[in-house]
Amino acid sequence: MRIAILGLGLIGGSVALAARAAAEAEVVGYDPDPAAERAAIARGAVTTWAASACDAVRGADVVVLSLPVDRIPAACGDVASCVEAHAVVTDVGSAKGDVVAAGESAFGGRFVGGHPMAGSERHGMDAAHATLFDDAWWILTPTSTTSAAAYAIVAELVSSLGARPVAVPPDVHDALVARLSHVPQLAASAMVDVAASGEGRAELLHLAGAGFRDVTRIAASNPETWVAIVRANRPAVLEALDGFRGRLADVHRMVAAGRWDELGEWLAAARRARIELLVKPAWRGQPVTLALTVPDRPGVLAEVTAVAARLRVNLEDVRIVHSTEGGRGRIELVVDGDANADVLARALGDAGFRVERASVDVATS
Amino acid sequence: MRIAILGLGLIGGSVALAARAAAEAEVVGYDPDPAAERAAIARGAVTTWAASACDAVRGADVVVLSLPVDRIPAACGDVASCVEAHAVVTDVGSAKGDVVAAGESAFGGRFVGGHPMAGSERHGMDAAHATLFDDAWWILTPTSTTSAAAYAIVAELVSSLGARPVAVPPDVHDALVARLSHVPQLAASAMVDVAASGEGRAELLHLAGAGFRDVTRIAASNPETWVAIVRANRPAVLEALDGFRGRLADVHRMVAAGRWDELGEWLAAARRARIELLVKPAWRGQPVTLALTVPDRPGVLAEVTAVAARLRVNLEDVRIVHSTEGGRGRIELVVDGDANADVLARALGDAGFRVERASVDVATS
Repeated sequence: MRIAILGLGLIGGSVALAARAAAEAEVVGYDPDPAAERAAIARGAVTTWAASACDAVRGADVVVLSLPVDRIPAACGDVASCVEAHAVVTDVGSAKGDVVAAGESAFGGRFVGGHPMAGSERHGMDAAHATLFDDAWWILTPTSTTSAAAYAIVAELVSSLGARPVAVPPDVHDALVARLSHVPQLAASAMVDVAASGEGRAELLHLAGAGFRDVTRIAASNPETWVAIVRANRPAVLEALDGFRGRLADVHRMVAAGRWDELGEWLAAARRARIELLVKPAWRGQPVTLALTVPDRPGVLAEVTAVAARLRVNLEDVRIVHSTEGGRGRIELVVDGDANADVLARALGDAGFRVERASVDVATS
Repeated sequence: MRIAILGLGLIGGSVALAARAAAEAEVVGYDPDPAAERAAIARGAVTTWAASACDAVRGADVVVLSLPVDRIPAACGDVASCVEAHAVVTDVGSAKGDVVAAGESAFGGRFVGGHPMAGSERHGMDAAHATLFDDAWWILTPTSTTSAAAYAIVAELVSSLGARPVAVPPDVHDALVARLSHVPQLAASAMVDVAASGEGRAELLHLAGAGFRDVTRIAASNPETWVAIVRANRPAVLEALDGFRGRLADVHRMVAAGRWDELGEWLAAARRARIELLVKPAWRGQPVTLALTVPDRPGVLAEVTAVAARLRVNLEDVRIVHSTEGGRGRIELVVDGDANADVLARALGDAGFRVERASVDVATS
């Protein structure tokens, strides 16, 4: 199989690396940025580098449009005449309404919209890695136009990259990501803005604990990417933003009026929803948390997760608490049930880690 | 040293475990909850379990009030008659205005407000661990009433638990944690609420990526704890919430009007602030210079620096200006922020030094 990837940034680069790692796929890359070209070739992400987008897609069985979301509709038109008649085209854009319309207009039922629910606040080919999609959901947005054969090819590709494909209609996707991703992104930036601009006390920001670091981590994401995403999903973003602002207005009223019971019930409902969210459909047993105190250096998480992978113990959740000073950190692993926890704790102990078992977990209390 | 800990939850329990791990401190615990008692004894967190709060504090050199923040003011009054005349009292409440007022009313200069910037969305003695405070900031909130000796004892205790004490006035603390902790907590819950309540699509919530999980992790925290915190810090929370809602209104306007350049600049500014926050672990407060006129003899500098060390006040810079005439000299100490300067100046005054506060600082000019 020959895969053409247009755009070798974080996502396109990771698709290339994962495809090369998974199979003997031929991967043809194109990106107008010379730095992306150099990095993709140096890292062995591609078997061939093309001189243009049209050169890349000629002869390809699958075309992956991994461009900024606002450039995908135009790209569909640009390469339409070069894409093979049998080829399937997909994309990785974070908003699907306009993209799917443009894709179907150019490729009919051979276009399958896609959106991997994986990412990083880093960007570019340098940040790409072959395991980015491991165990991540990859939303596909078929419509009544989509060919079942094309869907099957894209779903299989996505699975081979380590992700789990799931089909969601484009409009439901857009409303969902506005709530799960786009508004949280804007909210994280707003929280940093408020925190940093308070009465010349910005120097106190470094006192922030792990909670604030968690909440605002995504505020370090690439601004251009996010403008493009918000722009591409404007109506759904505005609607979700209205919903969020409405909830905050409710909270403000509760606090101002001292309606503490109501505030407590509201927090408790959000807590239950957050805990349910953690529980994946495949979840079986009682979640158990293992806590490791580790040196805060590159590679430690990889060592820890390698131990789990070797044992085939699935990590339901991983939480990394970096020390504010560096030097030491804490990793919390949530696994399914006592048996898995015992096996993993023993192996981590044998590997030289100090492991504590937390007997009560959020998900059960 | 004998430490009494009232309230063996996540924080109190971790103080107990860390104190036991760090030194041969005698730790007396009290908590009305039998489960906390069982867990504290089983885990060796205490050397003695007391039958009442008054029994616990009798004979103690340091009393740590690690109760829910809304119960601390009353607890100060309850145990005031049982606390030894020499004992120092501190607390771990997340809001300091009312707590410090009540503490000083009960114990005068022997009360030192405190707030460790460490925690977890888990709670209770079962979740406590000895390394919870490792490398974390521990804000202390001395006022003009606070005794330098009491401050030194609490700062030393906090350091022995693995944390780094830093002095911040109570009102600045309250505004800071409203922005860094309390509003993010409410916002995380609001984000979960919006996400979970969209058009019967709650089952799609499990598609959330790492970003949403990060942003909303703290929404799994204990509701009762958070009602107590918000209640105790209501004015600062309302102010910070207004600031946050104002930012979101700005964002809404930018998106609705398609002002994409402005949105991009705003996201970029938040990104810079977030990255600075992440990479700037060292204290960068406003430097304040204290100038001491000292006899020009061996050992004076050692005496001065010992006072600072005992208070755990970090000296950013030390300059020694020897008098050309001999006999007298001048030492300039640069410390971070007014609160540290106040604490150090008072202690140096108590130690017999003549201390002047330099109005224009060397390090900023």
